Amino acid sequence: MIFLDAAATTPVRREVLDAMWPYLTGGFGNPSSHHTLGESAASALAGARSAVAGALGCRQGEIVFTSGGTEADNLAVKGIALARQAANPQLDRVVISAVEHPAVEESARYLERFHGFTVDVVPVDAAGLVTPAALAGVLRPETALVSIMYANNEVGTVQPIAALAELAHAQGIPFHTDAVQAAGWLPLDTRELGVDAMSISGHKLGAPKGCGLLFVRSRTRLEPVIHGGGQERGRRSGTENVAGAVGLATALTMARDGQAEQQDRVAALRDGFIHQVLAGVPDAVLTGHPIHRLPSVASFCFPGTSGESVLLELERRGVVCSSGSACAAGSDAPSPVLTALGISAEVAQTAVRFSFDAAVTQEDLDAAAAAVQAAVAAVKNLGAGHGR
Amino acid sequence: MIFLDAAATTPVRREVLDAMWPYLTGGFGNPSSHHTLGESAASALAGARSAVAGALGCRQGEIVFTSGGTEADNLAVKGIALARQAANPQLDRVVISAVEHPAVEESARYLERFHGFTVDVVPVDAAGLVTPAALAGVLRPETALVSIMYANNEVGTVQPIAALAELAHAQGIPFHTDAVQAAGWLPLDTRELGVDAMSISGHKLGAPKGCGLLFVRSRTRLEPVIHGGGQERGRRSGTENVAGAVGLATALTMARDGQAEQQDRVAALRDGFIHQVLAGVPDAVLTGHPIHRLPSVASFCFPGTSGESVLLELERRGVVCSSGSACAAGSDAPSPVLTALGISAEVAQTAVRFSFDAAVTQEDLDAAAAAVQAAVAAVKNLGAGHGR
Repeated sequence: MIFLDAAATTPVRREVLDAMWPYLTGGFGNPSSHHTLGESAASALAGARSAVAGALGCRQGEIVFTSGGTEADNLAVKGIALARQAANPQLDRVVISAVEHPAVEESARYLERFHGFTVDVVPVDAAGLVTPAALAGVLRPETALVSIMYANNEVGTVQPIAALAELAHAQGIPFHTDAVQAAGWLPLDTRELGVDAMSISGHKLGAPKGCGLLFVRSRTRLEPVIHGGGQERGRRSGTENVAGAVGLATALTMARDGQAEQQDRVAALRDGFIHQVLAGVPDAVLTGHPIHRLPSVASFCFPGTSGESVLLELERRGVVCSSGSACAAGSDAPSPVLTALGISAEVAQTAVRFSFDAAVTQEDLDAAAAAVQAAVAAVKNLGAGHGR
Repeated sequence: MIFLDAAATTPVRREVLDAMWPYLTGGFGNPSSHHTLGESAASALAGARSAVAGALGCRQGEIVFTSGGTEADNLAVKGIALARQAANPQLDRVVISAVEHPAVEESARYLERFHGFTVDVVPVDAAGLVTPAALAGVLRPETALVSIMYANNEVGTVQPIAALAELAHAQGIPFHTDAVQAAGWLPLDTRELGVDAMSISGHKLGAPKGCGLLFVRSRTRLEPVIHGGGQERGRRSGTENVAGAVGLATALTMARDGQAEQQDRVAALRDGFIHQVLAGVPDAVLTGHPIHRLPSVASFCFPGTSGESVLLELERRGVVCSSGSACAAGSDAPSPVLTALGISAEVAQTAVRFSFDAAVTQEDLDAAAAAVQAAVAAVKNLGAGHGR
């Protein structure tokens, strides 16, 4: 099997499991307990926080461990918007892009339904980019928060985060980015990005499902999403997932150390794969930005097919990938991301996303490109047969 | 080391780790993905849900996997209250007991701060019990939800949940219980308990930190706390922690199978330990209910000492326990639970909680009781020395 669905989830790295193991076995203390077992767990958690802070160029106190990227997005969007509104009731708008993950989009809609917010959606261009001009067009004195993803999960387009954050800051508005897909592939230094909050998910970069984090800059007001015993400096309650935090820190450190090299290597493989697919399927359309895209994502529409049929034919040929986001897999509705790029509903239904992990090889992608050509041809022949 | 702080957290059971292992290694799929790897993960999740439903006497669709007990409490309290208020704006009160865990208490306070709710607190008697009469006294037509914990984490008092739930239902009010401490020790059949929602945490019963669940009865309206991709039938978004769910299901099944036997065995050990401590420290006071208490919790105040000093002396003697809840460890404020029982702030500062897991032995408790007598004596002598 050639696994090209790494944007959905990744295998846990062996080094990550090894780092977690002590905290799944003998070192099982509750970090809040004031005895040796608890202190040992607290120390492991502090070590993980320190490693994460190193990878993100921030302070340890700016890291909030969560149960994943979705919770981190909820905490950023709801938490910052509600805390700012509580301090200044006139702040009743949030800005998101037209291609956000549902974790951000639905958090914003919750603010609309339950807290009287208005959600302003910045459009993207045909390549999926939010231009600074487009963002400038929607910022208002009442804007409590801007949330724009770093890299898109369906088409891989990478946003100019530093420029967008600067634009928001010029008007005194905090800036959050969902970096769930970017982590492991793009620079994550929060000082260079200039963001106030950034979400990361463990299972997208070799840590297990059930762990993630929110970077949130010091002095950013934040209302918790999960209230209780006051863990994580009162920003996220619940007994800390120590093993998960240690695993996430290990995966993030490994990704950081290998990021520049992997980025170049995989981007070259990606470009070769895109070339092969476009050569093999002449009417295929690359979706997303041709240059500003994740090294790990090659996404296409194959007009005249159905994406689901192509996926089945690919899986028969040993290639596992997806039509877009895993969350929406099996849905009949066209992808809101693709329609935001101006792609028709009919063509959007033919989308296939190939996403790579750092272990991807030239051989895998050569085989996959050949399988794509055969799979698309098979689906078109089948469709033609049905038409007769 | 004799570990008597199982109410703070428990070791992961070996069988639980074994059950989780495939999903931390080769079976790493995202349950939302429509390919074999995803379907295999979805199947594991469904199996875990089925096992949990069997243990709780409910339908699979009534289980929402969460990141832990705190998130489950937040989802129940906020989720039910907000959904009911959205349907009927007159429902703007919630009832909680005076001895709830902060996960419930702070969720209720959030409703007060951000959604205009009034929180009605039912008092407890000197043993920590909520009487049906006390609950009846605070129910009102505007009550959106009653949330009363099954068993208290600091003093072990077990509430008459079935009777309390019936009382709420007679007035058409849904009833939630935090069963985080009860799980593994008390019957959890949701039909017999008659509850509409029930929270359980994995790490309190031999599963890892970072997993938990909320049982929520069919047709109970529920606004999510974490919004996004719509996992868990739209009630809790975020890629599911498959390994955690499998581990929780395994731990819950094992606990259910051994519960009646463990309950009797450990309750007898607990009674012997209480007897030994009260004999060895004549002015010690058992806190909580003498009979309606968790088999696993023996909690005392030792007037004339400080709880923290007794803990240190106990740890020197190889006994690890706590002053009360781990969340509040190290806090200078007297426990709100103990003060709700009518215990003075001065005496509340002398609290020590011993909590057992299913592996506890007579030998452990004999040694611990001797250590308690010695530790209390040492602290009293030290105090007398300081007084001179």
